[in-house]
Amino acid sequence: MDAPDIHIRSVGTALPGPAIDNAALRRRFGMPSLWEQWIDEFVGTHRRHLAVDLESGEVRHSLADLGELAGRRALDGARLDPRDVDLVVMGTSSPDLLMPATVNEIADRLGIDQVPSYQLQSGCTGAVQALDVASQMLRSGRRRTALVLGGDTCAKHFDVTMDVASLRPEEQINGVLFGDGAGAVVLSTEPAAGSAVLKHVFVRLVGRNRPPGQIVEWFGRADRGTGRPPVVEDYKAIEHSVPLLAAEAFEELLGELDWKNDELEYLMPPQLSGRMTARITKGLSAPAAQEISLVAEIGNTGNALPFFQLEAALPRMAAGERAAAVAVESSKWIKAGFGLEKV
Amino acid sequence: MDAPDIHIRSVGTALPGPAIDNAALRRRFGMPSLWEQWIDEFVGTHRRHLAVDLESGEVRHSLADLGELAGRRALDGARLDPRDVDLVVMGTSSPDLLMPATVNEIADRLGIDQVPSYQLQSGCTGAVQALDVASQMLRSGRRRTALVLGGDTCAKHFDVTMDVASLRPEEQINGVLFGDGAGAVVLSTEPAAGSAVLKHVFVRLVGRNRPPGQIVEWFGRADRGTGRPPVVEDYKAIEHSVPLLAAEAFEELLGELDWKNDELEYLMPPQLSGRMTARITKGLSAPAAQEISLVAEIGNTGNALPFFQLEAALPRMAAGERAAAVAVESSKWIKAGFGLEKV
Repeated sequence: MDAPDIHIRSVGTALPGPAIDNAALRRRFGMPSLWEQWIDEFVGTHRRHLAVDLESGEVRHSLADLGELAGRRALDGARLDPRDVDLVVMGTSSPDLLMPATVNEIADRLGIDQVPSYQLQSGCTGAVQALDVASQMLRSGRRRTALVLGGDTCAKHFDVTMDVASLRPEEQINGVLFGDGAGAVVLSTEPAAGSAVLKHVFVRLVGRNRPPGQIVEWFGRADRGTGRPPVVEDYKAIEHSVPLLAAEAFEELLGELDWKNDELEYLMPPQLSGRMTARITKGLSAPAAQEISLVAEIGNTGNALPFFQLEAALPRMAAGERAAAVAVESSKWIKAGFGLEKV
Repeated sequence: MDAPDIHIRSVGTALPGPAIDNAALRRRFGMPSLWEQWIDEFVGTHRRHLAVDLESGEVRHSLADLGELAGRRALDGARLDPRDVDLVVMGTSSPDLLMPATVNEIADRLGIDQVPSYQLQSGCTGAVQALDVASQMLRSGRRRTALVLGGDTCAKHFDVTMDVASLRPEEQINGVLFGDGAGAVVLSTEPAAGSAVLKHVFVRLVGRNRPPGQIVEWFGRADRGTGRPPVVEDYKAIEHSVPLLAAEAFEELLGELDWKNDELEYLMPPQLSGRMTARITKGLSAPAAQEISLVAEIGNTGNALPFFQLEAALPRMAAGERAAAVAVESSKWIKAGFGLEKV
């Protein structure tokens, strides 16, 4: 039996609370107007959504809340019942808890039960990792329908009392470049009107002898009071390596699909600052493709991002049109990507 | 093309530091001798290994250290080079960091590169989850060899200054029932002398409308000083549900394999206290099977446990002999298991 095609049947996304613009961030953290201008122009993220209330620091949305909403929207979009789901796979770098895995809380809330559920600990390639695991499991033919989720929230990292002015520039960039959110798709071995075929997915660790470009710590009882910074980035390494790895991932993806650079209608690139994203996209060389970027509107939503890009791309795609997504994880250097074609 | 058989080619494990007996725990935490007796007899764990130094609290071993050692032993056991590995999958509830995923640090240290690497956030069914993901990916036929890892360390949770006497009994049980460690197996689509065939693996979330039996929190910068307990257990629910779910998992596994209860030579049950493990094993009804339990020697090593059980079982198995493993995750209730047959 040949392995079945895997169809993306629907997409759902969720964002917490109202959009927060740069003026609101500037006011909250007592920063100068030059800082607001720096975000607007250098970082290029104009708005983002946060799981915490900016004034009080109160956690208003858990990852499970956002994942549940995105998952329900994806199931509704595919006109499927929770009992139709044979498999759930999620990617996140910021689970609500260590145990239970957030995917299992989401499954319970959605009414999904009696199926395998997997949560991948992952950074910016997590959505692609989840698509890879789910689609390979569906290809075995034993299961028909998978709910694939991705999301991140800053709730445990975002201290509204922090002195932003004292942070190193790369920590400041993280605070304004990222936004919270979750996304989901329904994958199925059966097509439906408007679905797209996931033609190829790949994930490739390229961390050999490279120090991590991004480290995010968690703390336990024994760590209280250590004062270590939870986030450390090598922004120079990210600036240098992400465009190169994105270009390599793009070439590998096209090669596997036997697609030419000018046979691509939509391009979903990695999302860093506006300037970096423009540089990355230029390096991907897809002359005929519309770029699907969301840097300005919601920032980099981590494991949720490709779902927002899919949500923007899929309704625009006509039958036979092709889209490619590229993701790069700078934590320990992973390149990843997937291609789809509307049926 | 039929899906290939998946062979367990080798097992490797790693334990941190020297064995710590109950007398050492009693002395360190200033507890009465009755407490030592309670661990010996009620909990039944006589020794365990810890990633932290019991006197100073210094972290002596990371999960990456233990996973690297277990992984190297598994590769050596299979006489494979790191470049032969096509896929790495790991399960843990206690990653060293949120990013990079510990699996990627381990891969780098072992010399594994240019392959997909996945880390599952999981509790006591994590090793089975990792075996499931890896074996399904191998069955697609595109890859031949997977390194599958599992492990846990208490390093971020274990505060040597804690007042054990003030902890609730279930927290005290956790402190003495669990031990640190890591394990690994090499899975391959090609057999070798002494390998066993992984006949069936299953993982089934059964968390619908059930509150979690175990919650383990992590803390971020914004949580510092909350004082919330990082671990909460519903020990009554665990005591009630784990034997039932283990029995269901065992019946499902035998049914899928079309094996009868008395056609099983080795049984690898979930590991709780000695008394609970005996109760669980009794409920599994495998009259001819040798039980492979390690409660007394190393405690419950979480995501590492099935690898230690495999390490004990595989060398004893003669050609044609069968073994079954059952795992239950009480966090949000997952039942899982796998069966193998020596070739």
